[in-house]
Amino acid sequence: MNKLLIVGTVAFDAIETPFGKTDKILGGAGTFIGLSASYFNLQSAIVSVVGDDFPQEYLDLLTARNIDISGLEIVKGGKTFFWSGRYHNDLNSRDTLVTELNTLADFNPVVPQHFKDADVVMLGNLHPIVQSSVLDQMEQKPKLVVLDTMNFWMDCALPELLDVMKRIDVITINDEEARQLSGEYSLVKAAAKIHTMGPKYVVIKKGEHGALLFHDKEVFFAPALPLEEVFDPTGAGDTFAGGFAGFITQSENISFDNMKKAIIHGSNLASFCVEKFGTERMQKLQKGEVLQRLQQFKALTQFEIEIES
Amino acid sequence: MNKLLIVGTVAFDAIETPFGKTDKILGGAGTFIGLSASYFNLQSAIVSVVGDDFPQEYLDLLTARNIDISGLEIVKGGKTFFWSGRYHNDLNSRDTLVTELNTLADFNPVVPQHFKDADVVMLGNLHPIVQSSVLDQMEQKPKLVVLDTMNFWMDCALPELLDVMKRIDVITINDEEARQLSGEYSLVKAAAKIHTMGPKYVVIKKGEHGALLFHDKEVFFAPALPLEEVFDPTGAGDTFAGGFAGFITQSENISFDNMKKAIIHGSNLASFCVEKFGTERMQKLQKGEVLQRLQQFKALTQFEIEIES
Repeated sequence: MNKLLIVGTVAFDAIETPFGKTDKILGGAGTFIGLSASYFNLQSAIVSVVGDDFPQEYLDLLTARNIDISGLEIVKGGKTFFWSGRYHNDLNSRDTLVTELNTLADFNPVVPQHFKDADVVMLGNLHPIVQSSVLDQMEQKPKLVVLDTMNFWMDCALPELLDVMKRIDVITINDEEARQLSGEYSLVKAAAKIHTMGPKYVVIKKGEHGALLFHDKEVFFAPALPLEEVFDPTGAGDTFAGGFAGFITQSENISFDNMKKAIIHGSNLASFCVEKFGTERMQKLQKGEVLQRLQQFKALTQFEIEIES
Repeated sequence: MNKLLIVGTVAFDAIETPFGKTDKILGGAGTFIGLSASYFNLQSAIVSVVGDDFPQEYLDLLTARNIDISGLEIVKGGKTFFWSGRYHNDLNSRDTLVTELNTLADFNPVVPQHFKDADVVMLGNLHPIVQSSVLDQMEQKPKLVVLDTMNFWMDCALPELLDVMKRIDVITINDEEARQLSGEYSLVKAAAKIHTMGPKYVVIKKGEHGALLFHDKEVFFAPALPLEEVFDPTGAGDTFAGGFAGFITQSENISFDNMKKAIIHGSNLASFCVEKFGTERMQKLQKGEVLQRLQQFKALTQFEIEIES
């Protein structure tokens, strides 16, 4: 089995949506990526940090999905990263209510020895210095490095972000962030400019409006599945990234055609994530449901037009 | 050849975008629908009204595209409908600067005798009473009636709109209007509710985010082609509707599978419309360009995933 190395937060989230609110529940980019990637045939490990307030039950939940947590540092007397947010009525925007970095403030990622030869590295949204440090520790050049980031690092750590971007193959970023990073409004132009910063593949996430994959002059689009109800968007982008990276790891194929499939798999898994609070839906998701919804994606997007030449 | 009857404004537009502004140029829903549908193999006619300030050159332009204008009333001493608008920087919203109804205020549509047996009727965005009046004049039940409308009629003529909606097969409407009409935020729920108002097929236009086609439990999605530059969105929705109705007319097939193709053809034609001011791009568009871009739509959306069962 191929190896996927995941770096990302493992955290507590407290979420308010128009449909309800939660206490502190399991969250974090690394968690969502790991759960999503676990639907593929691969070995995965999460590099992250938590405090000793992090429940054993959550650790068990990750290991039950065959996620190696030997790189998940547990800081004695430390507190786990905590984020709290409130979504607006349309669920397309949110206010952050609380961000407590806690143990994340001094996070020094350590890649487990047996994952220093990982085939694919998924750098979840974290300080670009942490992302770079993980790449520094690899003993073998990964077949593919995927990086997710956000506007916060463009505002506060742009030089470090630009540095790590030179070392990656794929960037996943949302539409507004792509515009900010490139200074271009058109996503086609934004992607072209981001290409020149390093990544050969640019994935622009548009939330409920789907995702675009750019590579040189090629472009592919995957819609989000139209749902009766989006309950909680938290983690959808990470679930998408986890599905993308997971499928690439399993298939060992980094062609553009295979990346198209990876984008569909990512969108498919993300469509489940938003149906319940936090990781709830992903925890109980069955492989049969995943396959069935892939059929829906086909029905949603595939057509037959014979083009006369 | 099958017949397509088009009802819609033939007008003057004056447009301001971040890229420039125009004087009074050719515009109107009927115009855009007619130009777009003319890329298919069919007979079409426009029912509309203008004043005698409407230049012969514009009339010639329509007849050169084989559009029958015997139902285009020219009111002596009357002035042509005039709309002026200014787009915001992101081109996703606009302010109406001027609306002069002029001859449109007393428009009494008269369907030419030789189009009272049209196969497909495309009711462009107009007062629902005008749309109903056209249906009243048909001597043979059309194979398909498509209706486009907007929020203005929901605000000012809702009972009349609900009446005409009971007589149509397909409604095309944008996302915000679908929400307004249904009182549902989720587009899946909105489409289901709009179904119950009459139309068996609901097309929800999302501008740069593509279009959704709903029919019972089935749903199909066509993205908008990602473009380097959107120059002027005016008429894109009408061009989409014209391509949709035009393809259905040509193909004489109202199955869901064929409507999928029609949605793609509509999106394809609309992707040209936005590249220049007003009808400029559509006037010069060559069939070869249309076919070539269809290939781009295939590359953009088609993928191969074998789903294990």
